[in-house]
Amino acid sequence: MSKIIGQTAVSVYPLSNYSFGSKEIKHEKDINMDQRMARLRQSYEKLGLRRTVEGVLVVQEHNHPHILLLQRGVAFFKLPGGRLRPGEDEVSGLKRKLTNALAPANPQLRISWDVGECVGTQWRPNFDNVFYPYLPPHITKPKEYKRMYMIPLPDKAVFAVPGNMKLVAVPLFELYDNPGRFGPSLASLPAMLSRFRLNVVGSVVPTAYPQTLHMASYNIPEQAPQSLLMDSAHYQFQQKQQQE
Amino acid sequence: MSKIIGQTAVSVYPLSNYSFGSKEIKHEKDINMDQRMARLRQSYEKLGLRRTVEGVLVVQEHNHPHILLLQRGVAFFKLPGGRLRPGEDEVSGLKRKLTNALAPANPQLRISWDVGECVGTQWRPNFDNVFYPYLPPHITKPKEYKRMYMIPLPDKAVFAVPGNMKLVAVPLFELYDNPGRFGPSLASLPAMLSRFRLNVVGSVVPTAYPQTLHMASYNIPEQAPQSLLMDSAHYQFQQKQQQE
Repeated sequence: MSKIIGQTAVSVYPLSNYSFGSKEIKHEKDINMDQRMARLRQSYEKLGLRRTVEGVLVVQEHNHPHILLLQRGVAFFKLPGGRLRPGEDEVSGLKRKLTNALAPANPQLRISWDVGECVGTQWRPNFDNVFYPYLPPHITKPKEYKRMYMIPLPDKAVFAVPGNMKLVAVPLFELYDNPGRFGPSLASLPAMLSRFRLNVVGSVVPTAYPQTLHMASYNIPEQAPQSLLMDSAHYQFQQKQQQE
Repeated sequence: MSKIIGQTAVSVYPLSNYSFGSKEIKHEKDINMDQRMARLRQSYEKLGLRRTVEGVLVVQEHNHPHILLLQRGVAFFKLPGGRLRPGEDEVSGLKRKLTNALAPANPQLRISWDVGECVGTQWRPNFDNVFYPYLPPHITKPKEYKRMYMIPLPDKAVFAVPGNMKLVAVPLFELYDNPGRFGPSLASLPAMLSRFRLNVVGSVVPTAYPQTLHMASYNIPEQAPQSLLMDSAHYQFQQKQQQE
């Protein structure tokens, strides 16, 4: 098969290769949306355009890609990441944010993050919660842009998440066409990722996804994988207290 | 600014740089959806997985990116492209399809197509009109995949479209969040394109989109550009009969 430009390959390992712990609670900066918007406005007046970076971490279950999302409360999901400091470059800022959100406090367990290709960009034109994947035509002073990057994972790692959050693995088929639950930005992740070659590595037989579909060896389970979202026991990872 | 991996730059020229003619009618192969599905099924039994390629051609009006779509009738929009022949590679097949759909019959006006990066992939699991940007987990025998490619345009060109079709330039803001009108695949194009750096080249002042937003020179019209979709006089390009 000839190389397809833009179709970058990323190895995707089983969720069971990773272990998940919890670490110190990270307090919310705002208690409600009004306060958050007031803080955004204040910060915009001081520093100008807010620059945000987020990481797309992909694992697999039943050979289907899942995205790691941070969940706060029942209904709020986000990619790990956050605001860059003034002058900070996107790659180092994203590594800092991923370490804050996902790395165990024990330095020996720290993940050496690999920041891959840009997956997409979102623009916030106003001081509200609406983002677009382009700059709307009449907007001369956007308030924020958010750039998403692919984060190719090592085959094994230990994650630790602040105690007031959960880390959940949401299948692509759950995100797709589901802006009501996840918002339009996360719901369009399956489309944005569809150019990548996600090489699903299994614990049994390594399988390429989706290039070897016509091969008889393609290892598909008899049944569709159960939605993790529908099953909170699966959905909330085993959280063992981190030894620090 | 440091280089962002995956954020490929594409120059986007004004719609007015291009001229549009019409050429011989290309008859539909099927008169209705049932006939079309029967033909897909027949072809699948004979040839297996159907491989389709499509081109994303971007122009600008009022500094906002627009996608060139073929329109048939009132409500049917598609990217130019089509089915690959058995054994045909994606890049040559897409060039052949783009020439069929868009190039004037006069060989001197032929466009030398440049096939850029993969924008996304869609899968058709069954013999119906539903595509997904991933292979659904329980599907072992998908019926079709469709790969979309960025087609960087020359700064000027002459297009000619079969007489029973129109070529329309649809702004990103019209496609976005509009699966009802354009279908989920076209509606997710703005998200898929958001990783590209679309350098909007104007006829007056060249402007980068959206990198130079904080620069005072950014040339934004006072009003949002009128939706071409809402204005059929704009929407249907001037169609002059091609001299052949």
